[in-house]
Amino acid sequence: MAVWKKHVRMVTPYVPGEQPNQPRMIKLNTNENPYPPSPRVEEALWQMDAHRLRLYPDPGAAELVEALARRYQVGADQVFVGVGSDDVLALSFLTFFNSEKPILFPDITYSFYDVWAELYRIPYVTKPLNPSFCLVKEDYFGENGGIVLANPNAPTGIAEELSVLREILDHNRDVIVIVDEAYIDFGGESAVSLIAEYDNLLVVQTFSKSRSLAGIRIGYALGQPELIRCLRDVKYSFNSYTMNLAAIQIGAAAVEDEQYFRETTEKIIATRERVKGELGALGFSFPDSRSNFIFATHPRLPARELFEALREEHIYVRFFDKPRIRDYLRITIGTDQEMDIFLAFVRDYSAKRL
Amino acid sequence: MAVWKKHVRMVTPYVPGEQPNQPRMIKLNTNENPYPPSPRVEEALWQMDAHRLRLYPDPGAAELVEALARRYQVGADQVFVGVGSDDVLALSFLTFFNSEKPILFPDITYSFYDVWAELYRIPYVTKPLNPSFCLVKEDYFGENGGIVLANPNAPTGIAEELSVLREILDHNRDVIVIVDEAYIDFGGESAVSLIAEYDNLLVVQTFSKSRSLAGIRIGYALGQPELIRCLRDVKYSFNSYTMNLAAIQIGAAAVEDEQYFRETTEKIIATRERVKGELGALGFSFPDSRSNFIFATHPRLPARELFEALREEHIYVRFFDKPRIRDYLRITIGTDQEMDIFLAFVRDYSAKRL
Repeated sequence: MAVWKKHVRMVTPYVPGEQPNQPRMIKLNTNENPYPPSPRVEEALWQMDAHRLRLYPDPGAAELVEALARRYQVGADQVFVGVGSDDVLALSFLTFFNSEKPILFPDITYSFYDVWAELYRIPYVTKPLNPSFCLVKEDYFGENGGIVLANPNAPTGIAEELSVLREILDHNRDVIVIVDEAYIDFGGESAVSLIAEYDNLLVVQTFSKSRSLAGIRIGYALGQPELIRCLRDVKYSFNSYTMNLAAIQIGAAAVEDEQYFRETTEKIIATRERVKGELGALGFSFPDSRSNFIFATHPRLPARELFEALREEHIYVRFFDKPRIRDYLRITIGTDQEMDIFLAFVRDYSAKRL
Repeated sequence: MAVWKKHVRMVTPYVPGEQPNQPRMIKLNTNENPYPPSPRVEEALWQMDAHRLRLYPDPGAAELVEALARRYQVGADQVFVGVGSDDVLALSFLTFFNSEKPILFPDITYSFYDVWAELYRIPYVTKPLNPSFCLVKEDYFGENGGIVLANPNAPTGIAEELSVLREILDHNRDVIVIVDEAYIDFGGESAVSLIAEYDNLLVVQTFSKSRSLAGIRIGYALGQPELIRCLRDVKYSFNSYTMNLAAIQIGAAAVEDEQYFRETTEKIIATRERVKGELGALGFSFPDSRSNFIFATHPRLPARELFEALREEHIYVRFFDKPRIRDYLRITIGTDQEMDIFLAFVRDYSAKRL
């Protein structure tokens, strides 16, 4: 073995969710939005000046940052933008989780938290959710090196009340608490309203779900100016120019179309509630999702088998071969038509199997 | 002080180069290409399907990776792409520089190397360039934890012969040697030809200079498949989707226009050689640049004063207030017309001052 291989950072490679590309597939596996982005995104693409691409983009991405600041009624110095919320979260781990004490997060949650902790050698302890997959708030009251909570949680879809987050924050004034709100726009209560009160709260959101822009990679963090300044300092130590001109201009255009945003998120919520009813009638059970997916289980239909049967029909959902959740499927909410095809297949499948 | 502040990663924030935005400025300060990107970039922008932005991009960026593999006649498993060469280089430091021994790089070189080393707590030692700003190859023959060399070097513009790099590689089979070729297309000899021979060589290039695409943020590394696999594993531990759809499609379109690439780089080289002659006639001296900038000094015109005088005329060049190089200005090669305005001012200025 070459000696250099001894000094390579060894990681367990994270395997990204399958990105199938079939002509007539129904893709309900990576929580993308079934609706296109705002028409203003198309306009922004058309208006983009190719000649300007020869120049470096604005390192501060001011156009996008200011659009977000207006939308969330905070200062431009309270907004940090990155290449998807994964970029923002990974950088936040690197920036804020440097104590010797372990950081805390639930045993069932977004599968990147332990990957980042291992990458940066951050000690961590996972706290089991209760049997209904709810947070046990008292688990977060002891000493720790920081906390990260997805709310709504993934892949359960459960949204905790703001009062629960507030209690956790009150017990943790000495560490950074990150609330990852990737799915907040589908019915949860955002912790952005708590930012003014807690100087140690960082709220992270994304353009990938509710703004239909997974393809342009934008995430952002909101917090008090001092937190944002820390993030910017570390980011500038890496790469001054992470947001390309297309992301800056398209992102700003999307944020400004509040009406389209409300219409599409409401449509998805309405579809979700209808699908809940139909899945319930078929004997499935699921936590009460406030996200753009449903995490469903059936007492007599094994999840893996249903997952594979759907896959053969080019209907893709997500199956996690992990403790506690391998009886569940995570089903992204698509258009009404897509969900009808999905439900028809499941109805047929369960009629044959039960 | 809040306790959490004790556990923030403290960094000396890197200050990105000034990005002035004056209507009639002449911007010769950040080594951007004065020519627009290939006309195929504009076509790619027009053809981009805004609706596809709702989906995650291909995590492997295959379209772009394959275009680069064809261009450099290597396998697709020998190409790694990132958000500008800064992203690729920072990730390479994290991935490959994990020994206890210090990594080595010159005292005068790209100013991000020490920033990344400090961010990741990588020990490092800088080796002084000789008085003519050339590499002292023997300095890299001893034990070390890895080597990073910019070739052509920045901000000097000097390109070392491939035989020098080969000697350094021969003395360093046990560590990773990174050759940062941001400026290679302006006349240097690329180390890509050495990749097949050295399994520990990583060559990093960028779209920001010779391909006129600083605004779309693309950098890439070329190396043997095992090195590339290590980079991908670490990258997937961070953020599966770093390259947005615009970068993938625009990047691929640009690589395929070889003729445009050759024409614009040749124009810049021709302008550079003419400007060298004119600056020499005005009493400036400079290393023999093989890049898209000239690093010039004048025995009787203090660099800082000339920098400020140019700035007042909205002609921006780069001045580094650092040991050994504060008598120099780094002047990016613009269009012939821009360089004529620059030269006319300098001629006038020196006539008045000398």
